[in-house]
Amino acid sequence: MIVPRLIERKRDGGRLEPREIRELVLAYAADRIPDYQMAALLMAIYFEGLDREEMNALMEAMLESGDRLDLARLPLPRIDKHSTGGVGDKTSLILAPLIASLGVAVPMMSGRGLGHTGGTLDKLESIPGFRTHLSLAETEKQVARIGCAMLSQTDEIVPADRKLYALRDATATVEVIPLIAASIMSKKISESLTGLVLDVKRGSGSFLPKLDDELKLAQAMIDLGARHECPVVALLTAMDRPLGEACGNALEVAEAIDVLKGGGPPDLIEVTMALGAEMLILATVAASREGAREMMDDAIASGRAMIKFEEIILAQGGDAGVTGDPSQLPRAKHSRELQAKRAGVVQRVDPREIGYGVIALGGGRRNMEDTVDPSVGFVIPVKPGGRVEKGQTLGVVYARSEKDIELGISILEKAITIGESAVSGLPLVSHRVTAREVEDLA
Amino acid sequence: MIVPRLIERKRDGGRLEPREIRELVLAYAADRIPDYQMAALLMAIYFEGLDREEMNALMEAMLESGDRLDLARLPLPRIDKHSTGGVGDKTSLILAPLIASLGVAVPMMSGRGLGHTGGTLDKLESIPGFRTHLSLAETEKQVARIGCAMLSQTDEIVPADRKLYALRDATATVEVIPLIAASIMSKKISESLTGLVLDVKRGSGSFLPKLDDELKLAQAMIDLGARHECPVVALLTAMDRPLGEACGNALEVAEAIDVLKGGGPPDLIEVTMALGAEMLILATVAASREGAREMMDDAIASGRAMIKFEEIILAQGGDAGVTGDPSQLPRAKHSRELQAKRAGVVQRVDPREIGYGVIALGGGRRNMEDTVDPSVGFVIPVKPGGRVEKGQTLGVVYARSEKDIELGISILEKAITIGESAVSGLPLVSHRVTAREVEDLA
Repeated sequence: MIVPRLIERKRDGGRLEPREIRELVLAYAADRIPDYQMAALLMAIYFEGLDREEMNALMEAMLESGDRLDLARLPLPRIDKHSTGGVGDKTSLILAPLIASLGVAVPMMSGRGLGHTGGTLDKLESIPGFRTHLSLAETEKQVARIGCAMLSQTDEIVPADRKLYALRDATATVEVIPLIAASIMSKKISESLTGLVLDVKRGSGSFLPKLDDELKLAQAMIDLGARHECPVVALLTAMDRPLGEACGNALEVAEAIDVLKGGGPPDLIEVTMALGAEMLILATVAASREGAREMMDDAIASGRAMIKFEEIILAQGGDAGVTGDPSQLPRAKHSRELQAKRAGVVQRVDPREIGYGVIALGGGRRNMEDTVDPSVGFVIPVKPGGRVEKGQTLGVVYARSEKDIELGISILEKAITIGESAVSGLPLVSHRVTAREVEDLA
Repeated sequence: MIVPRLIERKRDGGRLEPREIRELVLAYAADRIPDYQMAALLMAIYFEGLDREEMNALMEAMLESGDRLDLARLPLPRIDKHSTGGVGDKTSLILAPLIASLGVAVPMMSGRGLGHTGGTLDKLESIPGFRTHLSLAETEKQVARIGCAMLSQTDEIVPADRKLYALRDATATVEVIPLIAASIMSKKISESLTGLVLDVKRGSGSFLPKLDDELKLAQAMIDLGARHECPVVALLTAMDRPLGEACGNALEVAEAIDVLKGGGPPDLIEVTMALGAEMLILATVAASREGAREMMDDAIASGRAMIKFEEIILAQGGDAGVTGDPSQLPRAKHSRELQAKRAGVVQRVDPREIGYGVIALGGGRRNMEDTVDPSVGFVIPVKPGGRVEKGQTLGVVYARSEKDIELGISILEKAITIGESAVSGLPLVSHRVTAREVEDLA
């Protein structure tokens, strides 16, 4: 294998053979190819792309570089949900216990905050004592026992992906659909799932700017799943505003607990239920969306979903008392409301401003070394298109100091615009994408 | 400076500021930016290019990374010639002494064989004892004393270019016009020239496949020269066949000596004289091409050019006896002629086949570590378009063994085609490019 020749071929729009990609990725994972050659190849791929075969070979090589969860002996369907990342998105915190309480195994490997978006691991760690770093063996045992584990990517899982991801981050080669798809799906396939539901975010707060790209990403992941006996269904959901009201780690856990208690904001409930229904249908536990919805309503009303959440928290070393008394979650010392200076229609609630705002308050990372303050953030009860009266609360800032309160208020003022025109944002759930079709739900 | 942001901007078709490029290149030369980030940036530049300002900033930063020849005190015009690389191209061996013998300082920094092409340094080193590794101080002294030095790029000259070039070679980012132009011109400007003549090769044996690219490269280099008080004139010359008859290091030195004695093949003489005339006009030593040609003919007829060559050889530790007796050059033990199997018209003499053939016989490098056997190669007296009779000599192989002779004959048979159709190759000197115009000479 002469690496510059392979780079050259990709650079000139040619195709790499699956065995060449396999050899490249495994040699790279074993430090036998230098970072600089892989960086040049990644940038060539940014411009020239990978076809489906190449993308699949990349994913398979990443899988081959490490170990997998061994769950195939479980007599249960195994379903996970993955989101491409958003602001205020706490659906995983609700869905993992909710779906596990309905007899589906949910081995859920999640990430940390990235860019302006939050991460499920950071949210979970705002529960005192909660441990997200589980070994493969621990995870297998816990899923067998209580049907669910919520963990970070272990060192054993797809190490080639970890190494490649760090390189992509340092070389401006993150936003490449086949690389994103292979990276996500290598981790998901390693969970030995029987099905996967993707939440592909749309709008200004998502990572991909165009609907076309979101569809391509969804279809690429569906294709990879289909090649590995893991049927994938993708929902395209709105990220032109934060999801739900709470943005910030502990605030989001509290809101997820609200939903598991039967409350919570309607937009969050709608998106969560839509994703959950797909999970239950893929698991063949429900036959229709209506049936799935009834099952989920019942799991919440009966308290079974909440009990499952408490089991997960206990199994992973956390204080399950937070579900009964969310005031035991970390609370910011300072808070202040922002009131509307005029009556009108909410024109926008900018998710990027809010997401970066949480980071500015200390609730996210600028660098991988930063520690996260789980207590800070925003609660924003208004939505684009909604009518507000003068003096009505637009949002609340939770912060560590009065100075940060001022900063938070200015962020809210910048993120929320009031005007006169009627506004309609993106539909909450706009498309359903499967191997067979793209269904317009809006 | 956040390097991934700069890579991203270039990747997205944006422009880097001159100060950003300067900072990047100097930090890279000082090992403060990792190879992998520079590799990603180079590949982004492959796709998105550099504008003239960016290219100039790159060249200036490379210059700033090292020392320069200090020749400005010399009361002489200082002219160099640079070729983009060909097969059988020994014009430098002739022009350096010829032009220096006419009162022009010629500080000539050359390279080694690259790909299928030969290198002036390898040819010079076939002269027993000839030393091409001179320090800046030695070079300055020798140019002041005898008007010429023929040397390799020293460690002190543009170290950033050396480091970048090695990275480009390993990452398939060599063939990028602004990078080629900045690399060549940084070395040339460091020679403190008052003028430069470029020999830009065209045709199947050149590095750039399209006339359009060759013109762009010439114009890029002309632009860089103009910004640094170094007027540049480029001639586009034919490389759809080898230049002259000899291909192989010692064989080419012998042919260059032939020309300095008043002999040699007509095509080699024509290209050499065209380049030499431009050098003399840039030096303001001649006023016209005709005048320049007369001066060069006289320098050869009088023996002055040959005496200068002997001075250079002696100054650099070589055996000047080779000029009087070229049989003192390394000679291959084995040789064999290939005769035409039929009468007809020569359709092609493929320069790449011949160039790679010299390497296959041991006369060039596959890897940077290979040693070069100066004695081997080919002498090919026929040219595309020429008529040959059955039994006429098409070429002679010089090799180290009978086995290599067989190999050499098979290479000649593959490289030379005889047919019936009339053929006209590229004009030997087709275009003359200056800052003002592109003159069609054909």
